[in-house]
Amino acid sequence: MEKLYTEMTTEELLTEKEALEKRYNDFKARGLALDMSRGKPGADQLDLSNAINHISDYVVNGVDYRNYGILDGIPGCKELFAELMGVESKNVIIGPNASLTLMFDYISQCFTHGAGSTPWCKLDKVKFLCPVPGYDRHFTILEHFGIEMINVPMNDEGPDMDVVEELVGDESVKGMFCVPKYSNPTGIVYSDEVVERIAALNPAAEDFRIIWDNAYCVHDLVENAPKLVNIFDVLPKYNNEDMVIEVCSTSKITFPGAGVSAIIASDNNIAAIKKRLNAQTISYDKMNQYRHVAFFKNADGILEHMKKHAAILKPKFDVVISHLEGELAGKGIAKWVNPLGGYFISLDVLEGCAKRVGELCKEAGVTLTPVGATYPYGIDEKDSNIRIAPSYPPLDELELASELLCICVRLAACEKLLEV
Amino acid sequence: MEKLYTEMTTEELLTEKEALEKRYNDFKARGLALDMSRGKPGADQLDLSNAINHISDYVVNGVDYRNYGILDGIPGCKELFAELMGVESKNVIIGPNASLTLMFDYISQCFTHGAGSTPWCKLDKVKFLCPVPGYDRHFTILEHFGIEMINVPMNDEGPDMDVVEELVGDESVKGMFCVPKYSNPTGIVYSDEVVERIAALNPAAEDFRIIWDNAYCVHDLVENAPKLVNIFDVLPKYNNEDMVIEVCSTSKITFPGAGVSAIIASDNNIAAIKKRLNAQTISYDKMNQYRHVAFFKNADGILEHMKKHAAILKPKFDVVISHLEGELAGKGIAKWVNPLGGYFISLDVLEGCAKRVGELCKEAGVTLTPVGATYPYGIDEKDSNIRIAPSYPPLDELELASELLCICVRLAACEKLLEV
Repeated sequence: MEKLYTEMTTEELLTEKEALEKRYNDFKARGLALDMSRGKPGADQLDLSNAINHISDYVVNGVDYRNYGILDGIPGCKELFAELMGVESKNVIIGPNASLTLMFDYISQCFTHGAGSTPWCKLDKVKFLCPVPGYDRHFTILEHFGIEMINVPMNDEGPDMDVVEELVGDESVKGMFCVPKYSNPTGIVYSDEVVERIAALNPAAEDFRIIWDNAYCVHDLVENAPKLVNIFDVLPKYNNEDMVIEVCSTSKITFPGAGVSAIIASDNNIAAIKKRLNAQTISYDKMNQYRHVAFFKNADGILEHMKKHAAILKPKFDVVISHLEGELAGKGIAKWVNPLGGYFISLDVLEGCAKRVGELCKEAGVTLTPVGATYPYGIDEKDSNIRIAPSYPPLDELELASELLCICVRLAACEKLLEV
Repeated sequence: MEKLYTEMTTEELLTEKEALEKRYNDFKARGLALDMSRGKPGADQLDLSNAINHISDYVVNGVDYRNYGILDGIPGCKELFAELMGVESKNVIIGPNASLTLMFDYISQCFTHGAGSTPWCKLDKVKFLCPVPGYDRHFTILEHFGIEMINVPMNDEGPDMDVVEELVGDESVKGMFCVPKYSNPTGIVYSDEVVERIAALNPAAEDFRIIWDNAYCVHDLVENAPKLVNIFDVLPKYNNEDMVIEVCSTSKITFPGAGVSAIIASDNNIAAIKKRLNAQTISYDKMNQYRHVAFFKNADGILEHMKKHAAILKPKFDVVISHLEGELAGKGIAKWVNPLGGYFISLDVLEGCAKRVGELCKEAGVTLTPVGATYPYGIDEKDSNIRIAPSYPPLDELELASELLCICVRLAACEKLLEV
């Protein structure tokens, strides 16, 4: 049985620290340069989709996808996403190469034109709820528009709904960002009850909008993966269809730099988005849409393809998890969830130690996501959360990086506990 | 020598009208369905770029263009546009598949964040100058944001600069849309003097912005085509570098639905746009950028390619112009410019007749750009301007459509003159 660090004597901690420092310095001497900072697929994952480029004919049923037109996406691509996401194709608009742009543009539209009510730029204060830890690029969008971000704690089933239900009573709270499946970074899947309570929300703001960023909708690492309730099946029960804007993309299915994104919304919201799009573009890239349709054929084609990704990714997650379990379990200095999908492992280290872990890793040549990035304004008040992105480095590098990370977590904990 | 319609007697007009009606009815009986409404390239033009898809390796100098990153465009693509437009590559950002989106997004950014001054959404009134006739999609953007559009007459050298210089004295006038080369629709190229006077403007609004939509920068129909002065060479003389935002794209070089666009701006403006982009996307489609670089190699590659477009387009323009000259010259009922590039022929018919011409054409199966579309709010007060788009129909259809158009112009003129 491991001994809890918190129960160690000063002498024991000093001995532990000395041993860790020796291991740490050995690592440092090797001059590593490893990167676990972003959820980038590896080159072998990208190779899985190379055949997508081998299309030579882009004229389909007499319609030339090389030319202008078809604002909301080619029918085949709308149907592909509709089938995948369990909605009607009339509720789908195909977007550009990144769902991030769809989210930014939608928030921008709410600022300049509102969401059926006063344009948000005309209001003194606009606030958004941010389940934390969360995705830094969501926070960047909100910060760009000067939206005040309010932290909502995440638990194993999703955002703490007691907190959410209370906060939406404030009329200036206009929305919430969610990553409902394999949450970035905690990796959990929103429970049926949480999805139901979200769908049932009765916010003071009639133009309250939930950005349902379903980035990892089919990104399972295991068979019999957890299922996320389709929120659009639940919303009608509460007359809340207009409250949710869902996005997804093939960024981590085909190519991060050249995928296809989709926005899924109610009839009202689709109409409002199309009105804006009619001024913003003539169409997104239909040739790329068609490449995806021709490559995948249907939703099953995507699901089969995702098994190939999982075969590459699962061993990488296993490496990190086995190091965490081997080196950090039972010491009372770290917590994590073993995710069944998505791109991240969220590691909570001893409070007040995350920044130090980041520094130690960096000094020894391993780059982590900047500590704090998983919180609005980059402020993790507990200085505890670290996001690990195991997808990009090859397995051998990941072994080294994981071992080093664990050493740093233990070392920072020793230092912290010796401070007292 | 042709007789001017305005000098015909009533009897002569009635005889003329009767003859035209006979020809018109013959056309109507043929049940045509021809389209001269939009500046769509023909399928043979699109075929010129099909080889662009035959790239199999997207890893360049160790950088994987399939993956995330490179916010402002791959170096090769920035250099390609920099060379083509005569600017430095640091002043270029590569955009999505349409420059329309770059323009919309920039205006949106001015609304939410301003252009170095108060965000436009915080102002009671924002006005833009619109040289007329002009491009309907510019007007759609302005209308979307509730920007008041003020008509500025176009002449053979560009916008009437006396009018422009006076109007920019109003601080609420925040900008102007220009298509400086082969203006849409008049086809003229801004003269050196007009470009100089634009660059020298001293607007009351310090955040005055000219959207320099150089959509037809290399779209010559003839050799020794007219040259447009590079406004970025002139702006520094007047310390006005920040006043102009230039855009261009390969929409009418490669594929309208899947080209690459670019925005060209001063260091200050590039920094402000990048700041927004950093929240809006991770990168635009780098694989498509690389396809374009690999296909064209350099600016000369683009210029050579444009000669192939000209070889297809010039005969189409010639068909329309020869009909206009043969049927409408010397009658005092129509004026047009024979454009040396671009995508349109702008035809001014007898005042009060353009709508009627549109109706007559439509009834006989020829679709024109909706009459009025070339003016803000769709209001052509003189009811005189018709935009002809000869690029899309095959030559034989264009012969028919042009003949019919001329008949309708003459018929509408007879009707009008007989009203009095």
